[in-house]
Amino acid sequence: MAGALLREIADAVGGELIGDGGLRIERIATLEDAGADAIAFLSNPIYARQLGTTRAGALIVGAAFRDQAAARGAVVVAADPYLAFARLTQWWADRHGRRVDAGIHASAIVDGDADIGEGVSIGALAFVARGCRIGANTRIGPRVTLLHDVRLGERCIVHPGAVIGADGFGFAPDRESGNRWVKIEQLGGVVIGDDVEIGANTCIDRGALGDTTIADGVKIDNLVQIGHNVRVGAHTAIAGCVGIAGSTTVGAHCMIGGGVGITGHVTIADSVVLSGATQVTRSIAKAGRYGGPFPFDDNAAWEKNAATLRNLHALRERVRALEKQIAP
Amino acid sequence: MAGALLREIADAVGGELIGDGGLRIERIATLEDAGADAIAFLSNPIYARQLGTTRAGALIVGAAFRDQAAARGAVVVAADPYLAFARLTQWWADRHGRRVDAGIHASAIVDGDADIGEGVSIGALAFVARGCRIGANTRIGPRVTLLHDVRLGERCIVHPGAVIGADGFGFAPDRESGNRWVKIEQLGGVVIGDDVEIGANTCIDRGALGDTTIADGVKIDNLVQIGHNVRVGAHTAIAGCVGIAGSTTVGAHCMIGGGVGITGHVTIADSVVLSGATQVTRSIAKAGRYGGPFPFDDNAAWEKNAATLRNLHALRERVRALEKQIAP
Amino acid sequence: MAGALLREIADAVGGELIGDGGLRIERIATLEDAGADAIAFLSNPIYARQLGTTRAGALIVGAAFRDQAAARGAVVVAADPYLAFARLTQWWADRHGRRVDAGIHASAIVDGDADIGEGVSIGALAFVARGCRIGANTRIGPRVTLLHDVRLGERCIVHPGAVIGADGFGFAPDRESGNRWVKIEQLGGVVIGDDVEIGANTCIDRGALGDTTIADGVKIDNLVQIGHNVRVGAHTAIAGCVGIAGSTTVGAHCMIGGGVGITGHVTIADSVVLSGATQVTRSIAKAGRYGGPFPFDDNAAWEKNAATLRNLHALRERVRALEKQIAP
Repeated sequence: MAGALLREIADAVGGELIGDGGLRIERIATLEDAGADAIAFLSNPIYARQLGTTRAGALIVGAAFRDQAAARGAVVVAADPYLAFARLTQWWADRHGRRVDAGIHASAIVDGDADIGEGVSIGALAFVARGCRIGANTRIGPRVTLLHDVRLGERCIVHPGAVIGADGFGFAPDRESGNRWVKIEQLGGVVIGDDVEIGANTCIDRGALGDTTIADGVKIDNLVQIGHNVRVGAHTAIAGCVGIAGSTTVGAHCMIGGGVGITGHVTIADSVVLSGATQVTRSIAKAGRYGGPFPFDDNAAWEKNAATLRNLHALRERVRALEKQIAP
Repeated sequence: MAGALLREIADAVGGELIGDGGLRIERIATLEDAGADAIAFLSNPIYARQLGTTRAGALIVGAAFRDQAAARGAVVVAADPYLAFARLTQWWADRHGRRVDAGIHASAIVDGDADIGEGVSIGALAFVARGCRIGANTRIGPRVTLLHDVRLGERCIVHPGAVIGADGFGFAPDRESGNRWVKIEQLGGVVIGDDVEIGANTCIDRGALGDTTIADGVKIDNLVQIGHNVRVGAHTAIAGCVGIAGSTTVGAHCMIGGGVGITGHVTIADSVVLSGATQVTRSIAKAGRYGGPFPFDDNAAWEKNAATLRNLHALRERVRALEKQIAP
Repeated sequence: MAGALLREIADAVGGELIGDGGLRIERIATLEDAGADAIAFLSNPIYARQLGTTRAGALIVGAAFRDQAAARGAVVVAADPYLAFARLTQWWADRHGRRVDAGIHASAIVDGDADIGEGVSIGALAFVARGCRIGANTRIGPRVTLLHDVRLGERCIVHPGAVIGADGFGFAPDRESGNRWVKIEQLGGVVIGDDVEIGANTCIDRGALGDTTIADGVKIDNLVQIGHNVRVGAHTAIAGCVGIAGSTTVGAHCMIGGGVGITGHVTIADSVVLSGATQVTRSIAKAGRYGGPFPFDDNAAWEKNAATLRNLHALRERVRALEKQIAP
């Protein structure tokens, strides 16, 4: 059952085959881990020196490494080797029966009123409330919760434990009762486009008035929090442990690194890249890379620097005083 | 089914009606999104200029905007327009059947020994263990887990995926066995007051010896971690992705921004406001606003600054040397 | 049912009894909370002054406090009092029936193909997919999800809501289709050793090609994200809200503080201690303590410092200019 011939692989990824097409490939592996029964890929030139050491039976490479790879054995040359690798994993998963079958698991609770598209799969112990709409071929994992009036497009994947459509966090202080919080009922919904992937235990809140919206092709990792009325533009990728506060708009084709926090009511332009752990406290109007995690260090160095940091303003004043003193 | 007359709305929020009480309102919307069938509210004066552009059929405003709003059409004037808006959402949700009915969903697993108050609702696939006590009119969402001996007050709301009463994180190193960790069994419980709201996939651990306690009126957002033996004071609000380590005490009426981390065994005074992403490493004895996320920047600026930061202490020494040299 | 005699406790922890072995102990408490019916422990000398004020009926102390403790009443002297306390909590939990019974809850969904060891317990509404292997005496909490081909060792504890084996976050951009993301199917598994504890709502992703591996004795707190192909060494402890990005290796006997983020594809040496909220952006080759959360402050001080921080590089240039000017 396992495995494939190299020529089948070359066909599957649309690459050019050099070498023995009858070579039997039993698994896909990294350059480092691959043995004679495995195919590996080289995409990032940083790893080029591993061409000399890998024991892979076959390689997927780009045109630049064609000759060097062919010199050592069988090769599939692809215009974009990383993309070819991605396509190979999909073909491999299909071939080896790793895809989930359509259908609703007997233990899932799906409201009779929910509108479930063709080819949808809903996993064990998932819950789909009234008013939900799930587009064709979308996969709802085990133990996912979709609360009322959540709409998902086609070909989405929602991983276990995700909660979509819980109440946003909205309260008004009641000054006459000693600043108790009065709940603002969250009356909006959640609208998610096609080809969206949502990670395990991630939360996407429903809107307070209008909807929270996630556009087509957005990919969201695990343990991400997306507040009410957030809008995420198409094909943006959001890594794990990110928090996006309410009413913020994130553009299309952004890449949000792990642990990033974005404050509420701001707008992030298209094609913004945020390094991991950056805390975004204002809008970003221009595409580009932004960063700002505080640099870590060994503890002794950190403690000395932290002490100076606390008085950074005073240090600036001292420099200013020096400048005045020695001014001509 | 949907909608209400403006005079009903004015009555519901206890506001003064100016204009056509028979106006039919089909939805509540923001100033920006509202059409002629919608009511919107103005609370923050920052948005006052939208009075001139909104297409809302009616407005809720405070006394300060009474005349300006009345000049453009129907108005409900309220002492605190944001609070009036919150009350309107509640009235609206009740009227439109958006509230959850009392009762235990057939798929929930509730221990026979648990003490469930009147009017409690327990959602699909929730789990309530032995020894739990749930006060009247509390709503336990789908897929919530309450482990043994968790006590919740009245009128609480617990959102899907929340886990209350899991073991705190406590281990003693066993030096004789090469520093393996020996588990400290967590023998305490969790005690939660009235009117507490707990977000989706949030975790509140049981105490190691005594109880973890959350006082009345506390509001906790999604994906928050509250460690063992933490105590949170009344009417404190905790935004998403916050972590509070074990044995820390947070005062009453605090506001904890998203992504804040608070170390263990410290005490935060009443009425402390923490900006998002602040990392609290020591106790805070005085009410007030505290902050400290590192300022982000475009990547080139950030890299230059980060390099200087790593040698900040040396920079201070250089300033000191200069001061000595030019001292009179 | 509750309680034990002091001599039973001394035997259980292997300590030396001084005083009345027939003393009845009803509970274990902290020095601060203990009454005459409780036993408390003193481990950290910081709390030594509480020896004079605690009302505990009996104490567990180390040799250094033997005489001081005996002077006030009954004592159990142990070589390592914190470890003795940990052992006492285990003995206490066993004696009072707080342990979970073996067996699979009727509401759990366990694939017929999964390999379940002796003495395993699987909680309510848990899901165990095909191909999983669970070692003897491991406890799977309520509402845990183990996706296909996850292997867990013996005596592990997995807390509610944890998701093990969800897809890692891997996509290749397809430039020809306007940078849509193409999913990289995650073909690896998860391999977890013996005596591992995994917190509530924590996520451990399956590997992309090889496996994600967690070695023996690792302890992981709540809401932790562990990316695909991460390797965590034996007896490392990871506190709440930590994120470890894909393909990173963490050594053995490390201690990772709450809220720490570790970037992908780096290596952390054995016995590294990371202070809470540190953001690790490169490999750490040497054992030791590392830190780096930005120091918080009251808001006014923070704002002044932040403004200077943004221009830190310029400040360094000004110091350099001053040095040149006054150079002899």
